[in-house]
Amino acid sequence: MTVAVLNAVLKPLIESRLPDWVDARWYATKQEAFDLAPQAEIGWFDFFRKDDMAQAIGAAGRMKWLNSVFAGVEAFPLGLLAQRGVVLTNGAGINAIPIAEYVVMLMLAYAKDYRAVMRGQDRREWLKDSPGKRELWGSRALILGYGAIGQEVEKRLVPFGVEVSKVRRSAAPGVLTPQEWRGRLGEFDWVIVAVPATAETEGLLGAAEIAALKGNAVVVNVARGSVIDQAALTAALAEGRIGGALLDVTTPEPLPAEDPLWGLANTHITMHLSGRAQELANQRAADRFIENLGRYGRGDPLDPVVDYALGY
Amino acid sequence: MTVAVLNAVLKPLIESRLPDWVDARWYATKQEAFDLAPQAEIGWFDFFRKDDMAQAIGAAGRMKWLNSVFAGVEAFPLGLLAQRGVVLTNGAGINAIPIAEYVVMLMLAYAKDYRAVMRGQDRREWLKDSPGKRELWGSRALILGYGAIGQEVEKRLVPFGVEVSKVRRSAAPGVLTPQEWRGRLGEFDWVIVAVPATAETEGLLGAAEIAALKGNAVVVNVARGSVIDQAALTAALAEGRIGGALLDVTTPEPLPAEDPLWGLANTHITMHLSGRAQELANQRAADRFIENLGRYGRGDPLDPVVDYALGY
Repeated sequence: MTVAVLNAVLKPLIESRLPDWVDARWYATKQEAFDLAPQAEIGWFDFFRKDDMAQAIGAAGRMKWLNSVFAGVEAFPLGLLAQRGVVLTNGAGINAIPIAEYVVMLMLAYAKDYRAVMRGQDRREWLKDSPGKRELWGSRALILGYGAIGQEVEKRLVPFGVEVSKVRRSAAPGVLTPQEWRGRLGEFDWVIVAVPATAETEGLLGAAEIAALKGNAVVVNVARGSVIDQAALTAALAEGRIGGALLDVTTPEPLPAEDPLWGLANTHITMHLSGRAQELANQRAADRFIENLGRYGRGDPLDPVVDYALGY
Repeated sequence: MTVAVLNAVLKPLIESRLPDWVDARWYATKQEAFDLAPQAEIGWFDFFRKDDMAQAIGAAGRMKWLNSVFAGVEAFPLGLLAQRGVVLTNGAGINAIPIAEYVVMLMLAYAKDYRAVMRGQDRREWLKDSPGKRELWGSRALILGYGAIGQEVEKRLVPFGVEVSKVRRSAAPGVLTPQEWRGRLGEFDWVIVAVPATAETEGLLGAAEIAALKGNAVVVNVARGSVIDQAALTAALAEGRIGGALLDVTTPEPLPAEDPLWGLANTHITMHLSGRAQELANQRAADRFIENLGRYGRGDPLDPVVDYALGY
């Protein structure tokens, strides 16, 4: 029997579907997770705090496969996992659909200034004209990071008449390389950041890139706060040098109450909710885990597996 | 020379493109429009007040072609126009793109409860979970009225993974007839109303139809307030018998400040702004008028022409 240490929250979605060679042990508290970890060949420990994650994973000395629902793995002890030869499957793509829905919502809400409409309703005032008149139709978007999220966003934007360009680390037809996109930054109405958070993407949109944007450009970030030079972005927004920013992620999180980003009229802060705006997250994560369990039992490669050198 | 009486606001978009057989006379005020109207063979009088419209059109005794940017023509003296044999070209479809963008925005903002997120930002509060967790993905929408707006909405919803059914007066493949859709009302998460406002569509969604909706169904109205029994809708919303309503149009407009719809948490009121949330309205209207002028000069049929019997 192969011991799998799993969160009891997922029991109703998983237990009846487990192969007979799996001996599942369920934890309901952090302490139970730490106590059960040494028995795990398969482990699934998704804690929000980095130190809890390190403690559980540190204790799991026999673990061969670590599963996670998190897409970003910067909170994991990747060096330790690599050294021990643990395979890490992450949540890349699991939240791509709800995040893509969120991105389109934010773009439209910005374009029509839906916040001002809503405030009009609060005042019971019949506005005479639309406070926002932008259209997605005929606009141009750059998607930085063409993984699952970038692809789901593109699929939804194209029928709106948005001309989509995209950037990806690995060259592919119709995709700009990291060398090409910087020179074209001034062409886009929307710059949508959906890259993984790695050493390579830290500060990807720096002061120079922000200065190169069109005067009405809107930056959308559903990646990680660290991917953007937040001080440079805040200055550009406060001085009206760009159109706006739609920030699902910030540095740090939670964003402190005194941060000036909160109060900028051209900035939407959505508290890292984009991936949570769904009812099906646990179901999707459970489905993927069960599918990977089948592969594990057959000795097939798991998917998606984190590359410890790339960090995603 | 053919005399065309036109609004001076459109002069910059039209004047240089007029055929040489057109003698354009521009009005800057209502009174100038009334004074010039008797000279018009071609007229374009878009006043918001029904009595102004009646006065201008009443005075235009020589008019053969009346153009309008309005999609709904219930404010026009249709009987008089029919009797005089005037051809009326309306704005059907001109605003379809911005209206379709608005519909998708409203659906997404409702699904994720973006109003609550925005209020969180106002309080500088980092919300811990998404106040709305619905997804468009996997939901079912019924589009009532499959003209230009309905088609543009469908085009945008399908890539979100929404299963779209539609209803149209004239039978067509894949389209439900007015006889079929009522029996299926309980199947839909979204009911999107985009029919023309005519005697036939008045009260189309009455108390019985509203009672047949799913408990979480959301009604979206970008047609006219009169298409829905607003008292029945308000009661269903206030009692939580349906999920919500996204109302770009109401009865009457403006909606009086004391109307209970304003204050319902599950209702969005957007003040007939959907078609105004665009920068290109005048350009689109001017382009269509110039195209129709060409047809008029050649003796070809204009498009789209209002059918006075149908009222759209």
